[in-house]
Amino acid sequence: MFRRVALELFAERGFHGSSLRDIAARAGTNVSHLYYYFPSKAHLLRSIMLSIVDSLLEALRKASAEAGDDPVARFQALVRCMVLFHAERQQEAFVGRSELRSLGDEARREVIVVFDEITRLFKDTLDAGLRSGAFRCAYPAEAIFSVLAMSSAVATWYRKGGVNSPTTIAERYARLALEMVGHDTRAEADGVGAAGS
Amino acid sequence: MFRRVALELFAERGFHGSSLRDIAARAGTNVSHLYYYFPSKAHLLRSIMLSIVDSLLEALRKASAEAGDDPVARFQALVRCMVLFHAERQQEAFVGRSELRSLGDEARREVIVVFDEITRLFKDTLDAGLRSGAFRCAYPAEAIFSVLAMSSAVATWYRKGGVNSPTTIAERYARLALEMVGHDTRAEADGVGAAGS
Repeated sequence: MFRRVALELFAERGFHGSSLRDIAARAGTNVSHLYYYFPSKAHLLRSIMLSIVDSLLEALRKASAEAGDDPVARFQALVRCMVLFHAERQQEAFVGRSELRSLGDEARREVIVVFDEITRLFKDTLDAGLRSGAFRCAYPAEAIFSVLAMSSAVATWYRKGGVNSPTTIAERYARLALEMVGHDTRAEADGVGAAGS
Repeated sequence: MFRRVALELFAERGFHGSSLRDIAARAGTNVSHLYYYFPSKAHLLRSIMLSIVDSLLEALRKASAEAGDDPVARFQALVRCMVLFHAERQQEAFVGRSELRSLGDEARREVIVVFDEITRLFKDTLDAGLRSGAFRCAYPAEAIFSVLAMSSAVATWYRKGGVNSPTTIAERYARLALEMVGHDTRAEADGVGAAGS
């Protein structure tokens, strides 16, 4: 509960703009009660940030496993999952992106380890598709950064009740991401195959 | 000078985590001197935010004009310019992205008007390429959001002195963005033309 309230406040005013006192007050309790669970604001931020990236990683692993072995299906599933997560959890996405600076060095390293795992899920899938000839992409590293950036940015503009549902947006982004990594059915038919130079 | 110092502090601790007193102190002066130029922290933030988006818009307009009439050249020039701006002005990019929430309603509207102009530059170019048959893209609106997101995210990971120069990164991103909007020389040769449904 403290984490939910702190997340709200960090999203509204930033980590440095929110005090433990503010958090306790919004949670309807006092600072000493909050101290009992979180000895400092830094502990609270670490706990929030790790829980955000851990649940994203878990969702991506699940989506990837359910998609099976085909790299195209797996890549699409990963992009869809990124988009859905960021459309549905906008506050988490915003705080996760803006308060990495406010973590202590050790906590930041812990979060980055999970980010790296997330990146690796995409990289392994893209590499598999390059090997199989399903993808054709001259700059795989930049493509992965791009796919991660575009899908997480959905959190910055998505509004509930807008024209398109998160599922529709996720579908469209998966299609755009496939274009970017050179998944082209004509190319496959022509036997052009993987470049990946 | 106050704007530069305030930008630094906002990037480090956020708008709500930085006081006018902090800003004056880091600028080596006192609050009354700062008040003379900026009657409030909100005025300072508005001025910083508008100057960031205005200079981005100006750079994009220049790049687009220099690229001439060909939509492919213009689209590439816009993406390159976005990447270069975000690699070279990381603090501005971070504050521009994270402190939109901290602007008053009117100032936020002013900034969004400029954002909309930026989006329109990309949209007009993409539309021209769809009409000419140079691009083939089922979801132009989502493609533009994606291109803006991927190129501005360069600010979050680019490090000076890394393996690739900003120019190389800009070139690669322009290529990836072209792939995403379906610029395919084979398709042009086949006369497949624009879809843009």
